Amino acid sequence: MLTGNITLAHGNGGRYMRELISEIFAHHLANPELDIDADAATIKLPKGKILFTTDGFIVQPLEFPGGNIGTLAVHGTCNDLAVSGADPLYLTLNAFIEEGFSFKQLDRLVESIAITAKECGVKIVAGDTKVLPRGEGSGVYFATAGIGVCQSEISIKMSNIKLGDHILVSGPVGDHGVAVMLAREAFGMRGDLRSDAANVLPLTKAVRQHPGLHFMRDPTRGGVVTVCHEIALATGFQINLHQPSIPVREPVEAVCEILGYDPLYLACEGRVVAVVDSSVADEILTLWKNLPEGKMAADIGTINEGISRVQMKTELGGTRILEELEDDPLPRIC
Amino acid sequence: MLTGNITLAHGNGGRYMRELISEIFAHHLANPELDIDADAATIKLPKGKILFTTDGFIVQPLEFPGGNIGTLAVHGTCNDLAVSGADPLYLTLNAFIEEGFSFKQLDRLVESIAITAKECGVKIVAGDTKVLPRGEGSGVYFATAGIGVCQSEISIKMSNIKLGDHILVSGPVGDHGVAVMLAREAFGMRGDLRSDAANVLPLTKAVRQHPGLHFMRDPTRGGVVTVCHEIALATGFQINLHQPSIPVREPVEAVCEILGYDPLYLACEGRVVAVVDSSVADEILTLWKNLPEGKMAADIGTINEGISRVQMKTELGGTRILEELEDDPLPRIC
Repeated sequence: MLTGNITLAHGNGGRYMRELISEIFAHHLANPELDIDADAATIKLPKGKILFTTDGFIVQPLEFPGGNIGTLAVHGTCNDLAVSGADPLYLTLNAFIEEGFSFKQLDRLVESIAITAKECGVKIVAGDTKVLPRGEGSGVYFATAGIGVCQSEISIKMSNIKLGDHILVSGPVGDHGVAVMLAREAFGMRGDLRSDAANVLPLTKAVRQHPGLHFMRDPTRGGVVTVCHEIALATGFQINLHQPSIPVREPVEAVCEILGYDPLYLACEGRVVAVVDSSVADEILTLWKNLPEGKMAADIGTINEGISRVQMKTELGGTRILEELEDDPLPRIC
Repeated sequence: MLTGNITLAHGNGGRYMRELISEIFAHHLANPELDIDADAATIKLPKGKILFTTDGFIVQPLEFPGGNIGTLAVHGTCNDLAVSGADPLYLTLNAFIEEGFSFKQLDRLVESIAITAKECGVKIVAGDTKVLPRGEGSGVYFATAGIGVCQSEISIKMSNIKLGDHILVSGPVGDHGVAVMLAREAFGMRGDLRSDAANVLPLTKAVRQHPGLHFMRDPTRGGVVTVCHEIALATGFQINLHQPSIPVREPVEAVCEILGYDPLYLACEGRVVAVVDSSVADEILTLWKNLPEGKMAADIGTINEGISRVQMKTELGGTRILEELEDDPLPRIC
């Protein structure tokens, strides 16, 4: 195992970079398609619709209850493929590592990436490392790109959404945002809340073949309200949420109340929002509720005619307009 | 056009991020496969061997004679696919942008990305943006991942290399490294030297079907000597370079002499090193020399039995062992 810390020479293409790649990255991520002597990996894809996407990761702190920047880097890209109806198959990994970063922590993060990739059924087949001079990074940033394949004629897109559709969420919202915030300890608060960061493929697989499923998205940055705004903007419809139905864990509620956050705007990293035909909303909800990941799934709103905006019936019976997010309530959450 | 500078709120998933993406990224990069309302892009691939790779970019300064971090981000990944024998087809793009970075410069860089992608025949089909707090970045970092397809049975790999093979380089070495270094102005020197950053696909297409071609690689970080070390390590052979044959432009030579750099260790971003059967070395060299990109191509060395290392016959007739790069002579070159 390498000991000590990253130096600029670990980014220069020479001996130290080779050691960094073979002793940390290739050591943990080894698989038949990963050839560190090649400029590109040869991959085989099954028949079907091919999907390609990418995501970048700058979360602070790098490690938090329920995950770290490495697990997020795998889940983030795999989940974008999963909500598009695909099975994620291959990832690439970029690491931007700050000079002075410890090999020990890097090793721990890359090991997490390897474990998470295995859990998600994806192989990391190519990568690149760059070293940032001390002070021009904050430990490590990752980016992943992913390829997935849809093996059947699944159509999951905004334009499928129609009036009367119901909006489902697969579990409680805001856990990831609050867990990361508490891990910063900037507020002098602690809690045993864990991030919800997880592979959403079991959730998407359970419902993606159902003809009543119109659209799915994972509510990451900007949370559930931001997904609703994206729908309102793309479709012109009004989104009506029903506050008493939206699952929020008690400690998330408590922290948000003290600090003035709204859990509906906080990032989730293991939840799915689905828009479904009203006639089968209960049926699809049950598919989720039967999964361990979906026990707290709920029907939280509807798609309606009216002004293209997001509004919510509150617990007290009033109506609140949920504006599009402007200021950043919680930067560096993913 | 957006005016002013990037704020943390441009990374939060809400209104400002949406404006950043639509007014800068989608504005320049628009193509039928890029759907900013989707979580993943649907792509079509022709029959053939599929290649997948990635690269990250942290060059300083962000703009230099002959290119910028945006053109490098496209060339870097496309060239890794090209030297593997593929036609690059699709890219994803990650941008890590520092708070306070000007929209004007970002717009210029993304416009360069769009122009370069068009020149290289690739489409950017998905992307992600993150905002780094002021002081935790240095303007902008990019990462790209790329998919390419080989439509014939081309075999380009280290294990094809055999004793007696010749080593060709497609053009003069060190231009990129010296151009970027002079652009830093840290040495009080100026020159009109331009980076060699370019699409190498015309070079690889010209030779990749030739049965005498055994291996190709672009000599980026660590330069030509580093490629030779990679070959020596993987094959166990001795690499003999012939200094008088290695093309180096006069101003590159001059700057390197003054500052004590060796151009053979400096990054190129538009050159190809090829290892070819000795019986057809001249024939393949001529294929390159007939191209505008390959006018200065040269046969620079051979693969031999002996100690697994890289050595060079100097202009004065002596033999110099070229050690594997250890310290970083020139960090942040790509």
